[in-house]
Amino acid sequence: MPEYPPFAVTADLVVFTIRDGELCVLVICRGEEPFAGSWALPGGFVRPGENLDEAAERELIEETSLGGAVAHLEQLGSYGGPDRDPRMRVVTVAYLALVPELPVPVAGGDASDASWRPVRELKPDSLAFDHARILADGLDRARAKLEYSPLAAAFCQPEFTVADLRRVYEIVWDTELDPRNFHRKVTSVPGFLEPTGGTTAGERGRPALLFRRGEATLLHPAMLRPVR
Amino acid sequence: MPEYPPFAVTADLVVFTIRDGELCVLVICRGEEPFAGSWALPGGFVRPGENLDEAAERELIEETSLGGAVAHLEQLGSYGGPDRDPRMRVVTVAYLALVPELPVPVAGGDASDASWRPVRELKPDSLAFDHARILADGLDRARAKLEYSPLAAAFCQPEFTVADLRRVYEIVWDTELDPRNFHRKVTSVPGFLEPTGGTTAGERGRPALLFRRGEATLLHPAMLRPVR
Repeated sequence: MPEYPPFAVTADLVVFTIRDGELCVLVICRGEEPFAGSWALPGGFVRPGENLDEAAERELIEETSLGGAVAHLEQLGSYGGPDRDPRMRVVTVAYLALVPELPVPVAGGDASDASWRPVRELKPDSLAFDHARILADGLDRARAKLEYSPLAAAFCQPEFTVADLRRVYEIVWDTELDPRNFHRKVTSVPGFLEPTGGTTAGERGRPALLFRRGEATLLHPAMLRPVR
Repeated sequence: MPEYPPFAVTADLVVFTIRDGELCVLVICRGEEPFAGSWALPGGFVRPGENLDEAAERELIEETSLGGAVAHLEQLGSYGGPDRDPRMRVVTVAYLALVPELPVPVAGGDASDASWRPVRELKPDSLAFDHARILADGLDRARAKLEYSPLAAAFCQPEFTVADLRRVYEIVWDTELDPRNFHRKVTSVPGFLEPTGGTTAGERGRPALLFRRGEATLLHPAMLRPVR
């Protein structure tokens, strides 16, 4: 085997959820140099014996105690510039995770110092390392996937209304959508939504039909973002 | 910095082109153990001053002498199972490259022992390491991207006919497409194709209109694969 430069390999996580009408990301406030006081994406070293996906799943459970509540985890991309960590050569394999809106804060408890922060409040220079770029790439991926995949439902509870789903699209895309137009489009994509047969209790106004995610893995036709 | 297990990091390439009506991938016959005599994807160690994309670009130039002929290079994903290389812990960052149909063989000359092989002839157990999985993932990515991006044009010469483009779709998707239906669809996607104003010489039959790739980065509506 020829000589090769040794690297550390980490798995970092871009974990999105929706809280209080805002797209939020899980971050940790760094206590040590480099970047003490900056926000960082949660993550850690890949251990001997683990593959990359396993490392990401372990980090996600450790940081969030979410367990089964994670609706989606996918590899986002790898980042390995020679200057990304001043201490050593580190390649990070970044993952994108989508988590349903949580009834109570889960991260930020005793087990972790991670907290949910609205994405729009995180200025790029408040993030450690190249995490601003990784976060931006995660946001791009999530926004694009909402167009051609049913992943918006990953932010919802298992049963949801069309209005719940529209709110996810509006928050992730940071835009307003016409309710009637959205309803017509979303219910005409084969396999996207499946009626549960139930309705909301209808505390205010009329009861709304409840849906669960259907079996489609790609949306045809796609749900296109409004041009801005 | 806590203790971490050292890794080697490589950039490996899934390079596709079309030759003699077949989808072909660039492979190297391994001369040494492990996997002596097996086919492997070209690639190599990421060097000290390089980022990941730079390593992939360097490997591509070294292995193919293609230079500017590469029409597309993107990160495909990272692979880092603990047993993927029996000698050491290696994470590879795999890239997908698409190359236009080449008038003459480029790889396989003095500078490289790489050669183009039809994908359909490469049995999974003839490939070294986990390269069969990486190749399969690259093929899935290329097939999916032809649906919603204009990347089919990356296999074509700068000026091409609708029939040339249809042949790319048919070869990559391994299917037959109705010529009139394909023509109607492909010419109705805004920004996909731009007429050059020229036509083919028309040695056989009528001259055909020539196109170049337009400015669209996503196809709306998408070009859907036939359901099989």
